[in-house]
Amino acid sequence: MPGAVPYFAASGSGCRYRDVDGNEFIDFMGGYGPLVLGYHHPEVEAAADAARRLGSAFNHPTSLLVELAEKLTQRIDFADWAVFAKNGADLTTWSIMVAREVTQRPKILKIRGAYHGTHAWCTPGHGGLLPEDRAHIHDFSFNDVAALEALFTQHRGQIAGLILTPFHHPAFADSQLPTPEFVATCNRLCRQHGALQILDDVRCGFRLSTNGSHTTYGYQPDLAVYCKAFANGHPISACVGRAPHKPAASRVFLTGSYWNDPAPMAAALATLDIVARDQIPQRLALTGQRFVDGFLALGKKHGLALVASGPPAMPYVRVADDPSFLRTQRLCAASVAQGVFLHPHHNWFISAAMTDADIDDALCRISRGLESGIP
Amino acid sequence: MPGAVPYFAASGSGCRYRDVDGNEFIDFMGGYGPLVLGYHHPEVEAAADAARRLGSAFNHPTSLLVELAEKLTQRIDFADWAVFAKNGADLTTWSIMVAREVTQRPKILKIRGAYHGTHAWCTPGHGGLLPEDRAHIHDFSFNDVAALEALFTQHRGQIAGLILTPFHHPAFADSQLPTPEFVATCNRLCRQHGALQILDDVRCGFRLSTNGSHTTYGYQPDLAVYCKAFANGHPISACVGRAPHKPAASRVFLTGSYWNDPAPMAAALATLDIVARDQIPQRLALTGQRFVDGFLALGKKHGLALVASGPPAMPYVRVADDPSFLRTQRLCAASVAQGVFLHPHHNWFISAAMTDADIDDALCRISRGLESGIP
Repeated sequence: MPGAVPYFAASGSGCRYRDVDGNEFIDFMGGYGPLVLGYHHPEVEAAADAARRLGSAFNHPTSLLVELAEKLTQRIDFADWAVFAKNGADLTTWSIMVAREVTQRPKILKIRGAYHGTHAWCTPGHGGLLPEDRAHIHDFSFNDVAALEALFTQHRGQIAGLILTPFHHPAFADSQLPTPEFVATCNRLCRQHGALQILDDVRCGFRLSTNGSHTTYGYQPDLAVYCKAFANGHPISACVGRAPHKPAASRVFLTGSYWNDPAPMAAALATLDIVARDQIPQRLALTGQRFVDGFLALGKKHGLALVASGPPAMPYVRVADDPSFLRTQRLCAASVAQGVFLHPHHNWFISAAMTDADIDDALCRISRGLESGIP
Repeated sequence: MPGAVPYFAASGSGCRYRDVDGNEFIDFMGGYGPLVLGYHHPEVEAAADAARRLGSAFNHPTSLLVELAEKLTQRIDFADWAVFAKNGADLTTWSIMVAREVTQRPKILKIRGAYHGTHAWCTPGHGGLLPEDRAHIHDFSFNDVAALEALFTQHRGQIAGLILTPFHHPAFADSQLPTPEFVATCNRLCRQHGALQILDDVRCGFRLSTNGSHTTYGYQPDLAVYCKAFANGHPISACVGRAPHKPAASRVFLTGSYWNDPAPMAAALATLDIVARDQIPQRLALTGQRFVDGFLALGKKHGLALVASGPPAMPYVRVADDPSFLRTQRLCAASVAQGVFLHPHHNWFISAAMTDADIDDALCRISRGLESGIP
């Protein structure tokens, strides 16, 4: 939305940030997810600072890597081991290679329109791709049990893994929660065909539950990838897996510059503790529900039909009957003009730094934005 | 070398670090490259701290991104634009996609044994790979002008790019400097065939020269990737390119969690300034030469034939006539036991935090390690 949104950030605190022109925004994106506790959470920053004083990109990991792996394997029911990287895509890509190595099969099933990163096998972009990049990637629609069954039948004995997000959170479309039948079918078909179930919990992880989003919906993953809310903005991602797959996982080479840096590991340890101690997922759900209910009520008040989707912790609200998203863009632009940062084509993120007063402030501002109507 | 090397780091300062058992090491790896100025460089840390106080993973970049892009395009002669990521591999992979998008051709030529990251098209690992991952990747030996000519002839009209490291720094082999004929041939063939020349300057950048390693050897790259020494251990990588390729580059989707974090950008700005102001490449060359000369003299003194290779800033010394690397492993293990961290199969990294006294201390320790002989 050229001209309607900030281009450069200047500073952030709690659930608010300022752009370089001094405009303040209540932040419903949180860096596209990482800032689940808000900017500058004092405990997370203190933990990272303490680790940083020891050093940065060492030749070896520090003991914090062991602590973090142990915390994850204790927290995540199916997890027997963990590896760490920087980006979500580092590990979604690695996880499909692990599935191929475990099964010695080539094919990966994925949800059409799901985002797993910018690598060639999954990027939503179109530039620079070759047909070979996706020769063994097969898409199907979220919740489409028949299509999933058909793929498993068609490619019998060739399917290495099924990669899923816990719920479907595509860009330019409503979010969709999984049906119980879909979850059960994913679990059954992976088990039946010896394919690995890979949960891309990058966007949802530690927002919907304290112990992995598979527990929210009933998935039985073999591998799960975490990032974003994992360390409240510090650069780290994680993949956890089951013991039988550890030897194969060890054969898929994985490393990167700076990966031994202890500060993000300290931040992740602190964030995981706070998420559990302060029951962050429950708070996000309550805060998000207040926001969504209030937003829909504003639509009624101003005569604008709205559609809300997604779990309240990661809501998405759009204008009804708006296939071009033009009116939804105008709705978000009007909100941004009043100091509420909303994205017109991507789910939003509730932050634990948001109080009821912040939500009411946001709703009041959005209401002002709606006063002159959304053409 | 199980049992002979530290497993977990505890703290670092300048050119030395301690493991969790309290053993101190003079560090000739520097986190496999990033710590070009040593641990906790005060100016770099102050710059990163100041940026960190503003916020972390914003929805938008801060103005530091613009400053850093401008500094790179001023510093690097051929660079008209810059993008930033976290790891080197984020951008070596992106750069081959850009070359494919620019040329609308599939094939990439690369040096056999060169390391460009862990992604499937280039990983040195063997697990989880498919034939399709490398269907259009063609290897040839560094400095082999005839082989390069033959590939350009064989795949005429199909070659998108040639990816190179400035000198050849393989694992489990000596480093090789490029011949003038090889550099001239790379430049000529890329120009003649309309293929992009991609310089993977991840490991060498800002160590051999202040303005990109292509200036050291005479390469004429179209794209260059920087990481490691770029920000003294803070997680950031960069790719720069020429103006005519900007539209195609813009079509190759690129993003990642935490990529707008201003602290690593502030660290990169400070590091680039210090590298130029303090003539770091010259200092690394002098310090490295003192180390290599002293190391070879120790070999003579102790009757151990040694082979040194690579530029002095990134030296590699091994035992002569040691195809299994077993004696080189024992040499490095003996040095590690005396508190000098050396890697037996990978080039080393001189740090600007090393004084002549540190080098002499390291040589004295290595000499003690050699006293009982290397079986």
